[in-house]
Amino acid sequence: MVSMDMNAKKIIQLYKKAGARIETRGRVTLKNKNDLALWYTPGVGAASMYLAAHPEEARHLSIKKNSVAVISDGSAVLGLGNIGPYGALPVMEGKALIFRTMAGVDAWPIVLDTQDPDRIVETVLAIAPAFGGINLEDIKAPQCFQIEKQLIEKLNIPVLHDDQHGTAIVAAGIADLIVLDRAGALYAGREDMNIDKQELAGITNPHRIAGDLAHVLQDADAFIGLSGPRLLGAGEIERMAPHAIVFALSNPEPEIMPDEAKKGGAAVIGTGRSDFPNQINNALVFPGIFRGALDRGVRKITLETKLRAAKALAALVSVPTAGTILPDVFDPRVVPAVARAVR
Amino acid sequence: MVSMDMNAKKIIQLYKKAGARIETRGRVTLKNKNDLALWYTPGVGAASMYLAAHPEEARHLSIKKNSVAVISDGSAVLGLGNIGPYGALPVMEGKALIFRTMAGVDAWPIVLDTQDPDRIVETVLAIAPAFGGINLEDIKAPQCFQIEKQLIEKLNIPVLHDDQHGTAIVAAGIADLIVLDRAGALYAGREDMNIDKQELAGITNPHRIAGDLAHVLQDADAFIGLSGPRLLGAGEIERMAPHAIVFALSNPEPEIMPDEAKKGGAAVIGTGRSDFPNQINNALVFPGIFRGALDRGVRKITLETKLRAAKALAALVSVPTAGTILPDVFDPRVVPAVARAVR
Repeated sequence: MVSMDMNAKKIIQLYKKAGARIETRGRVTLKNKNDLALWYTPGVGAASMYLAAHPEEARHLSIKKNSVAVISDGSAVLGLGNIGPYGALPVMEGKALIFRTMAGVDAWPIVLDTQDPDRIVETVLAIAPAFGGINLEDIKAPQCFQIEKQLIEKLNIPVLHDDQHGTAIVAAGIADLIVLDRAGALYAGREDMNIDKQELAGITNPHRIAGDLAHVLQDADAFIGLSGPRLLGAGEIERMAPHAIVFALSNPEPEIMPDEAKKGGAAVIGTGRSDFPNQINNALVFPGIFRGALDRGVRKITLETKLRAAKALAALVSVPTAGTILPDVFDPRVVPAVARAVR
Repeated sequence: MVSMDMNAKKIIQLYKKAGARIETRGRVTLKNKNDLALWYTPGVGAASMYLAAHPEEARHLSIKKNSVAVISDGSAVLGLGNIGPYGALPVMEGKALIFRTMAGVDAWPIVLDTQDPDRIVETVLAIAPAFGGINLEDIKAPQCFQIEKQLIEKLNIPVLHDDQHGTAIVAAGIADLIVLDRAGALYAGREDMNIDKQELAGITNPHRIAGDLAHVLQDADAFIGLSGPRLLGAGEIERMAPHAIVFALSNPEPEIMPDEAKKGGAAVIGTGRSDFPNQINNALVFPGIFRGALDRGVRKITLETKLRAAKALAALVSVPTAGTILPDVFDPRVVPAVARAVR
């Protein structure tokens, strides 16, 4: 597995050797003047006139039919933080590779030379016409919420920022949940919370528990990490209830490594990584979400859609075990099951 | 040939059947968890950290190595006019197909939901990091000049608006040239000319001839049309000097159809189309220009580069005839010859 026996230098060598990890390919042949006359000029003039008069038909006779822009400003890349557009580029290109390989979606990486929310919105609106969907990625909170909200309102193609929905979806399904930020537990009435945190505090933490992570973990049944590398040790896991569930989803460095969590007594452990069991990664979801949206012309990805997708994924594992709570990313049933949830 | 025996309806059917004319393809395999761990997470983290620290290396280990954005606002599409981003999309996609097929360049069509020059500049600057070059296309004059100029100044990747250079290049090489706009010949001192036209008038039309196209064509040796459909008839060509050269480059509808120009006595006739002899189309140039720029890390496409490219193309035809003044777009020597001119 990569993480264990391959160092950064070797990985970079392999990336350099590959050059790019995706490329374009023609879907029609261009071998002679007849081909050129049909697919370029003069033939293309007929298609241009047609789409000028019927722009909604771009969904049927252009790249918009199957294309998704994978867009980041590099402000919150993986668990690596604000490393800018060039830092983000390998991740966006990797997502484009996954889109193609898993779901046959033509995704193109776009990294932005701005982290200003208004300029990000303006830029995405400006380039949207040739895309069938917008996948925002690795944009830091809370800016990402407002950016996504504005784009969803203003565009008639699906827009999804797939990193920042975990919390909200989990909060909808679990009654006694405590959300923490760097300063500790969110609770109704805590000072110095922005509007998004106030909203979260209002629907979670019913007993208004305050305190830091170690305190909150006391007797907890489950921990879901969406923060950063190496936040926890085996000692903190030992404070949790017996047979605890630990999802350490910071990527590539989880909040706690699986062997350490196991040492602390965790019974079920998941990470975002490909090299440990129970890979809880948005790669299970985004290819199918956009496959379904493109195929059915769905313009909004609703909370219901996301919950249906989660349930569809769970339903693919008939007999869950501690090491197989989710289907494998390479399970060929995953993309169709998620795509069917989009309607 | 398409134009003669295929009507718009049939063309649109074929475009619909194709769906998109380009797609993405993975350049690395993604078949198992090891692949995913290398090309996505956790392996991609190493590449991200590396590019965050060394952004200039994006040219070697990301899609930036070989990618060109083909960008239009749809304000001057072919000879069809201002038909907007969806009208422009088939042309940009066709260019992306040609980039891939002719020169192995990964070009991606971007059409803009704005025609404001400042917003176009802002948008292109914002999305530039993941691209190795910017090919502006079908943006109306005079805005296109300022847009291109600003982008060339602000970006360190090659930027080319390949429609609007014809006039300037021709004006540099021919001593007695008259440029016309809708109002007639440009001449030094004519009123109501913008700054670009004033500049052109200053370096052309040495005898300060005024008048409309028919007047200016009297005894002219050559006509180069870069305007719009069906501007001329055989009668106007008859006014020209014997054995006149007629380049009717409006596309897909030339200023005069070749048979009509021939009727008027033209000896050498060129159009931008694939279905007539002497195809004078930027498809001869843009694939090689960007191939050369990407391969050699050239950041500016200079006037000298363009003239070298033109001469390289001419040199490929050892014995020119009236019907073969230029190499064929499919001549395999074209892209390498043009690419070598970029240095």
